[in-house]
Amino acid sequence: MVYPNALYKLIEVFRRFPGIGPKMAQRLAFYLLDCSREEVVAIARAMVEAKDKLTYCSTCGSLAEEEKCPYCSDSKRDHALICIVQEPKDVLVLERTGQYRGLYHVLHGALSPLDGIGPGELRLDQLVQRLEQQDVKEAIIATNPNVEGDATASYVAKLISPLPVRVTRIAFGLPVGGDIEYADELTLSRAINGRREM
Amino acid sequence: MVYPNALYKLIEVFRRFPGIGPKMAQRLAFYLLDCSREEVVAIARAMVEAKDKLTYCSTCGSLAEEEKCPYCSDSKRDHALICIVQEPKDVLVLERTGQYRGLYHVLHGALSPLDGIGPGELRLDQLVQRLEQQDVKEAIIATNPNVEGDATASYVAKLISPLPVRVTRIAFGLPVGGDIEYADELTLSRAINGRREM
Repeated sequence: MVYPNALYKLIEVFRRFPGIGPKMAQRLAFYLLDCSREEVVAIARAMVEAKDKLTYCSTCGSLAEEEKCPYCSDSKRDHALICIVQEPKDVLVLERTGQYRGLYHVLHGALSPLDGIGPGELRLDQLVQRLEQQDVKEAIIATNPNVEGDATASYVAKLISPLPVRVTRIAFGLPVGGDIEYADELTLSRAINGRREM
Repeated sequence: MVYPNALYKLIEVFRRFPGIGPKMAQRLAFYLLDCSREEVVAIARAMVEAKDKLTYCSTCGSLAEEEKCPYCSDSKRDHALICIVQEPKDVLVLERTGQYRGLYHVLHGALSPLDGIGPGELRLDQLVQRLEQQDVKEAIIATNPNVEGDATASYVAKLISPLPVRVTRIAFGLPVGGDIEYADELTLSRAINGRREM
C-alpha cells in the first residue's frame, strides 16, 4: 500500500488520542489537510498555548491559569467545604451542576496497586495539610463508583478520620431518567442501601 | 460555570473536527494537558509539517509529497486505466484492496447544486485533457453510491462519451458478509439489476 509518509505520520498522531480508532484518525487527518495552512497553524498554536497556560492550582490541584485556581481564590465560596475528586475534569463536571459552592481537592488519580499507583502517587499529604491548617468542616469524597474509586474513598476516609472533619461520600443510586427494570444489581443494591425518608 | 479560558479555547479547537462532540472534545483536551510539553509540541509540529509536506498531484489530484504522486510516477502501473473518485481518501481505500493497478483521477468533490458545487468546481477539465492526451483505454467511475455521486457519475460519463474511452462504473450490490434479509431495497434492486452469469 502506498501511503504518503507525512499522511501516515499525521494519522499516527491522531491515533495516540484516547477513543480515536484508525478510521476516525484518518478522517481527522483529512480534515486537517483540507484546512488552510493558517488554520492548521492556529490549531497547533492553540494546543501549545493551552499547555503553556494551564497549570494545576498549588492548593487544590485543579486546573488553573495562575498559581491559585478560580475556586480557591474566590472568597464567596464556602471554604469550610472540600470536595475530593480523582481528576481535574471531575471538578468541571461538578461545577456544571451549579449546586456546589465549596472548594475542591484533586487527588490526580485513584489507588490502583496493579498499575503501581499507591497512596504516595496521590495528592494526599496536601489534603491532610489543608484539613489541618484550614478550618474545614466537611470533606465530601466524590471518587468514581468503581473498584479503584471505592478503595480510594475508603483509604481517604480512614486517613482523615482522626481529624475533626465530617467525612461524607456522594450518593449512589438510580440515575435520573433511569429505569428500575434496566438498572444493574450493584446500582440497585446501592440505591436500596442509600434509601432516605420521604 | 468557571472554565479556565485556555481550556475552553482548547476544547473549541477539538470541536471543529468532524465527528467530535462536546464530551469527546473535552476528553481530547484533557489528554493533551496530561502530555508533557515536548509531546504537545511534537503533536503540533506533526500537524503543521503534514500540511506543509502534503500537496495534491498536479496530474491526478491525489495526495502527494512531490509534484507527482507515487501512482502517476510508477511506470509499473497500468497507465491505460484511470479510476475516477471524489476525494483523495478514496484513493487510499481503493489502494488498500490491493486489486487495482491503474491510475486515479480525483475530482475533489461531487456535483451538489444545493451546496453550490457545479461542474466548474470539480477537476473535470484536467480529466478530459488527460483522456485526450494520454492513451487511456478505460475510465472506471468510482463516485459514491448516493444522489451526488450518481449525478456526478452520469455527468462524467456523458462528458467523456465522445472520447474513444470505455466508461464503466464499479459494481453495486450486497456487501460481502451481508445478509439479504437486512439489505435495503435500493441496494437489493441494484444487486438484481447488476446480476451476472455464473
